[in-house]
This record gives sequence, C-alpha cells and structure tokens, in this order.
Amino acid sequence: MMHVLTMPLLETIEIHQILHDAQAFLNGDRWMPNRETFVANLFFEPSTRTKFSFEVAEKKLGLQVLNFEAQTSSVTKGETLYDTVKTLEAIGTNIVVIRHQQDHYFDDLVGRISIPIINGGDGCGHHPTQSLLDLLTIKQEFGTFEGLKVVIVGDIRHSRVARSNAEVLHRLGASVWFSGPRSWIDDSIPYGNFIDIDDAVEMADVMMMLRIQHERHAVKMVTTQSDYHHQYGLTIEREQRMKKDSIIMHPAPINRDVEIASELVECERSRIFKQMTNGVAVRMAVLKRAIEKGGLK
Amino acid sequence: MMHVLTMPLLETIEIHQILHDAQAFLNGDRWMPNRETFVANLFFEPSTRTKFSFEVAEKKLGLQVLNFEAQTSSVTKGETLYDTVKTLEAIGTNIVVIRHQQDHYFDDLVGRISIPIINGGDGCGHHPTQSLLDLLTIKQEFGTFEGLKVVIVGDIRHSRVARSNAEVLHRLGASVWFSGPRSWIDDSIPYGNFIDIDDAVEMADVMMMLRIQHERHAVKMVTTQSDYHHQYGLTIEREQRMKKDSIIMHPAPINRDVEIASELVECERSRIFKQMTNGVAVRMAVLKRAIEKGGLK
Amino acid sequence: MMHVLTMPLLETIEIHQILHDAQAFLNGDRWMPNRETFVANLFFEPSTRTKFSFEVAEKKLGLQVLNFEAQTSSVTKGETLYDTVKTLEAIGTNIVVIRHQQDHYFDDLVGRISIPIINGGDGCGHHPTQSLLDLLTIKQEFGTFEGLKVVIVGDIRHSRVARSNAEVLHRLGASVWFSGPRSWIDDSIPYGNFIDIDDAVEMADVMMMLRIQHERHAVKMVTTQSDYHHQYGLTIEREQRMKKDSIIMHPAPINRDVEIASELVECERSRIFKQMTNGVAVRMAVLKRAIEKGGLK
Repeated sequence: MMHVLTMPLLETIEIHQILHDAQAFLNGDRWMPNRETFVANLFFEPSTRTKFSFEVAEKKLGLQVLNFEAQTSSVTKGETLYDTVKTLEAIGTNIVVIRHQQDHYFDDLVGRISIPIINGGDGCGHHPTQSLLDLLTIKQEFGTFEGLKVVIVGDIRHSRVARSNAEVLHRLGASVWFSGPRSWIDDSIPYGNFIDIDDAVEMADVMMMLRIQHERHAVKMVTTQSDYHHQYGLTIEREQRMKKDSIIMHPAPINRDVEIASELVECERSRIFKQMTNGVAVRMAVLKRAIEKGGLK
Repeated sequence: MMHVLTMPLLETIEIHQILHDAQAFLNGDRWMPNRETFVANLFFEPSTRTKFSFEVAEKKLGLQVLNFEAQTSSVTKGETLYDTVKTLEAIGTNIVVIRHQQDHYFDDLVGRISIPIINGGDGCGHHPTQSLLDLLTIKQEFGTFEGLKVVIVGDIRHSRVARSNAEVLHRLGASVWFSGPRSWIDDSIPYGNFIDIDDAVEMADVMMMLRIQHERHAVKMVTTQSDYHHQYGLTIEREQRMKKDSIIMHPAPINRDVEIASELVECERSRIFKQMTNGVAVRMAVLKRAIEKGGLK
Repeated sequence: MMHVLTMPLLETIEIHQILHDAQAFLNGDRWMPNRETFVANLFFEPSTRTKFSFEVAEKKLGLQVLNFEAQTSSVTKGETLYDTVKTLEAIGTNIVVIRHQQDHYFDDLVGRISIPIINGGDGCGHHPTQSLLDLLTIKQEFGTFEGLKVVIVGDIRHSRVARSNAEVLHRLGASVWFSGPRSWIDDSIPYGNFIDIDDAVEMADVMMMLRIQHERHAVKMVTTQSDYHHQYGLTIEREQRMKKDSIIMHPAPINRDVEIASELVECERSRIFKQMTNGVAVRMAVLKRAIEKGGLK
C-alpha cells in the first residue's frame, strides 16, 4: 500500500526499511525525486512539532509545499474531506499529509483517491510517524527491540501514541507495560499489563511518558496537577532510581511538572529533543516511500 | 491593461491567447520569468480551490510566493486595502492576486498601484480566472463556442461566475440560458433567457451548475434542500435525458444532493475535477501575461 | 552576540556594518549561505509589513522559510515559548525571527537556545530592525547622523520605535526631541526633550511620526481623532512650514488623518514607502549577520 495510515498496516519489513532510510538521512544521505512533486499538508488540529517536522522533511527533499489551514478553507463552507482532497489531487498535489480529529478519517478516502495519504494523526487513534520516530530513537540507543522493557505512562486511553506504539513494540519483540492512573488504562489494548510507576522506573529500559491531553477529555482530573505528578509522574526522585542506561521519552508538547519534572526534560537520559530531530528523518523516509510507491519518482 | 480584473475588460483576442497558453502548459510547455519574481496571494475570504490553484500555478512558474492571511495581518489594525497593497509593492512584491468580499474592490487600486493585480474574485461580481477555466474546459470538449447551448443553473443573483460567464459566452458566440428558481434569476444580465430545468437538460450542450451560496444570502430558501434538488437540481433522472455528448460543469465546492446528485459528481459527463486541473493551467497563463505586460520578465 | 534583540545591545560599529550591507543589497549585491538554511518566523501578533518584509528578505537570500502561526500551533495547548523554540531548533531550524507581545520575551531564551534569535518586536519595548531601517532611510538622505535634528511625534509611551530610535540616534550624534500630547511623553527616556509640534516642524530635519496604537492602550483618547490631528498631527499646513530638505517618516500602518494628513502619505518629502523597501534590505543584512555569527555559513 502506498499510504501510511496506521502502524498495524505497515509490515515489519517496511518498518525496518523506513528506519534504515531515516538513519541514512541522519547520516547525511541525500535523495530527491526526479520530477517536481507537490505535497499538501492538511492540518485540521493545532500542531507545531508534527506540522513543521513534515514541512522541514518535505523541503529537505526538494518538494513543493502547500500548507492548508482548515480555518481559511472551503471546509468552512461545509466541504467534505473527500471533496477537499479530491480537489487537491485535481490541481496537481502528488501527496497529502493529513491530521484530523476524526478517528479513521482516511476510511472515506482510501480507494477513492489516487495519491498517497500520510496520516499525521487521527482522533485518538493512530499517529504512525510518531511511532516510527519513537522506534528510531529506541533503535539508536539499544540497537534492537528484542527483550527491551518499555513502560508507557499516562493518558493511555486518549493517546494515539500509546496504541500504535504498544502494538508495534510487541511485534518487534519488546515487552510493554502501562502505568498511570488505573482508570486511564485502556484494557482494550492487548499488548501489555499495568505496572505501578514506582516499580516501573526500576525495571524499564525505556520510560515512554505521554502527554495529558487536557484539550481532549473534560479533565475530570483524577486529582490536582501537583498530586498527579507526585502519584504518577516522573519525579526527580524516581528518575534517580532508573537503571543506568535507561532512557526517557515524551512525544511533547510537555506539561512540565505534571507528567515529568521540568528539570528532567533536558536531563542526560532524556531523548525528548532527539526524538524531534529523528522525526524529521523518519518523515523524509516516509515521504520517499510515498513517492516511490506512488509512482511519482 | 496589465491587470486581470473582469472578463468584459479582457479583449476577445486576449482571451484566446490565454486559453492557448493554458492548453500549451497542459501539453507540457514550460515557461519561467528570467528574474526572481514575487507574488502575494491576498485572500480575504475562505477558499481552497482558487487559492491553492494559484499557488500551484505560481510555483510551477518558479515564482516566490507570499501567502497573506487577512486574520493575522495589519488589516486587523484597520489598515486599508490600498495601504496593504502599497506596502506589498514597496517590499518587493511583483504581482498581487486578491480575493475580497467587496464588489469592485480594485477600483480603489487601479492607477495607484504599479504592479499587476489579478482578481481572484470580488464580492458577488467577477471571478475572471474561473470564467477562463470554464471556457478552456468547454473549448477542449467542443473545439469552438459558436452555436453551443449553455445553460447556467442556480443562484444567478449571487454568483460571480454567472455574470462573467454569461457575458463572455455570448461574446464568443454561444447561446446562454438561465435556470433555477425564478426569483433567483437576475434580469439585469442581458445575455440569456430563463428556461425550465426539465427543458434545459434535453437541449443543453453544457449544463453549468452553480453553487448555492449559503454563506452569502440569508437562505430564505425557496424550499428545503431536498425539494430544491427535486425541483431545480441536476437529478439522476434528468442527467439521463441529457444529449449524448453534453457535459456537466460546476465551480465547486459542491453541495452534494442539492444542486447536483452526489452520484453525478464524478459521472462520465462530469468535467468538475477536470475544471480544477484546467484552473491551474489558466492561472499559469494569466500569471505569464501579468509578468510580460507588467514588464517583469 | 549572534542575536539581534535590542538596539542598545548592538555596538555602533555593528550598526554601521548592517547599514553598509543593507545599502549594498539595495545596490544589487547578492549573497547566499553555502548550505541549506531554515528560518522560522514566529509571529504572535498581527503584522503585515514586518512579517512579509522578513519573508521577502529570507527568500532573496535563498533561505527555507517556515511560517509559524500562533493560532494553529501547540501554543494553543499551553506550550511555553521556550519549548516551542527548542522544538524548532530540534527539527532543524537555523534561525528564528520572533514577534511577541511580552516585553523582553527573549530573556527566557538567550543562553538556552543555540540558534540566533532576531527580535521582530517585543511588547512595547524593542523593534531593532525597524530602528535600523529608519537609520538607513536617514543615512541615505543626509549621509550622516551628526547634528541632525530628529523629532519623534506621538504615542511615545506605547511605541517600540520611539525608545529604540531615541537611544541610537543620540548615540550616532543626532539631537532628538519628542512631540505629541504631553501625557504621552515617557520621561524615562533620557535622550530628548519635549517640543511643541508647531515649533518642531520648523526646526526638524526629520519628522518621525509614530502610529497611535489603538489596539494597545484603552484609547482614553486625549481627544477625538480629528482634534488630535489638529492639535498634534502633521497637517497639510504644518508640512508647508517644514524646512526645504527635511523629510517625513512613519513606521506604518498609518492612521490616515490622525497622526498625518492622508494627502501627505505619498507627498514629496514622505519616505514612508521607501522605509518599507529599506526594511527588506536591512533584514537581509541582519539575517546575513545571524548566519555568519551563528556559524551557519
């Protein structure tokens, strides 16, 4: 499939290929399509990281970039997503990157659109390029996924990242746990068990912190932010109990002193900003794949 | 005149030249200005098609593109359109493309601005590049305009497209009719007569459907949307009564199952998405003309 | 320092260098960095002139431009400015241009960010590239600053421009006065004395009009707009009493017939639109300096 929609739809061999290409880009490889290629970024939700990460990746590949803002588009006149994408295709767009608040928005597009779709995040569901950059960050650190202990902490129920990552980490041979408030654990995710944060820090190779999605669920916060940090967050005290070579990850944006102590954001074991750098390389690899699979090269 | 403001201001010979150049671009011709050329897109109203169509056209010509969003500009501090455009000229913009809600907004600019203005739509008045792409689509189909029967259907009174198209189609030798609710027909347009939709479909070479501009007039809808479709819209039943080689056009965005049955949007005689593809080529031709007439080459 | 934050932080020799480079760009000099360079424009306040001026400057230098709109970014999820800028750095941005409503927003960034920051205006404080373009405009006219009489008129208390300009003009050898409503004069600025507008016009070499910042202070207007114009503004009558070679400047956007008569905006001694043209050249010079000082070349 030329699209990148969800992690489960990517075969393991394809994932390894993308990680390989991304690392090559980080090592200085250059690659560009032979012909002028237009990509449209359709972001229906606020984003800094993902949007600019894609835009930098696109420009590094020499693509022509169209930035679509939902607020100033015909979407405000009631146009459907299908008609919008079909329009972009008709005017010469070769690839679309879409972030949309609706789960599986792409079901309405696949098979009816003849250009590759790259999912930049859908509702609370999938965010494959985030998963891929997380994988690249882990692979750079440990060389393999086999036998690694990864703990995903926080708002599992509302996180795109948790779902995608749990599945693929399990598939690649890692062991996955979930931590955070018990009521936030989504028991429909079959790839891991609950673990208390205080046990987790001593066992994990990777502490994968999630963002509390204040803007998604009416924050019937289980507690205050400061109590949350104390009960479920990565505190300075907990970081000191982590294993020697274990690392901290977070997709950002960060709620400082809620899911993670502010002082830890740039600490020695934090890979948070490295993840962002990896994000550009992963998106370059995904765009390259779309160009090649979409017959655009 | 270096500007493209309205269809009546374009001489017939110029229209033919633009259509010729647009078709050449579609056939693979390449053309670029000799020096770095900046174009600013000023869209004071939401738009997907027109805005991106211009942006793709500009980038295909190698122009440097400035995208002006009214919401984040000094317009919010009360700056006039003239001062805004004069500013863009002073900082090195070579061409401006403007869509603005005020009829004849350009009257305040012409003669006071020394760079070419391309009208991307003004109020309920003119939308010359839309007319040009409609003409190109018709010409591709029939080779000529002489003797063609074109029926414009819908919200004539609030449509930029209707006005511009009726005049120019008449000028180029086609016969024009108007259909839709009687009260929506604008009797101030002298180039055509009213015809009932059920007669129209059997006679027309081109059914040119318009969009119901919900956002423009307080929709004292003559009726419900479903009744509208039944009484005035292009239903599946009516399409079947159309002549063998006749075609369907619509400027989009489409209100599916209101002005046209959803199933017909991509039917064999629909040229709706082809119109969009043609739009890019027409805008390339118009920009080329602006660069040449504006002495920018 | 690689940053450009305030005029007092720029040494006199650096100012002369920037003005020199800017004039060279206006004279046709070309300069580009040797490697692909990304610049992000972060505008947290509406702007036309400054934003597009930077964008044109950036594109003329061949930079890759990322336009950040606060409204569609993770800032809406509560992300701090530091985390936003750090993110942009992590994804490969080489320079950031920032306009922000908070005075000295950059205090939170300097020393913690390893890429050059160019201040595009902070709160009511500083706007160094505006000062630099004002200086370039004066230098083009008079060749020197020594002994020039400059009167800054208007809303001194709420103007970024007044503060920066008074300091640097004083430093470069000019004499500075302030005019306008007595209650709007900020006595904390040590570089000039109050002068009545009717005396000012007959004495000044440069009448530097400021914009009344309606959007900043609850306009407990000292009076009506028309009375303001009559009492403190540059009226047609006052312009006629100006010295032979004296000039009029204004940073724009202009409140026509308030701080300046509408007829004077493009009069012979007005340099208002020339200032904007100079703004692009000055920003090219500042960006060149950032690329060189930031080790990006």
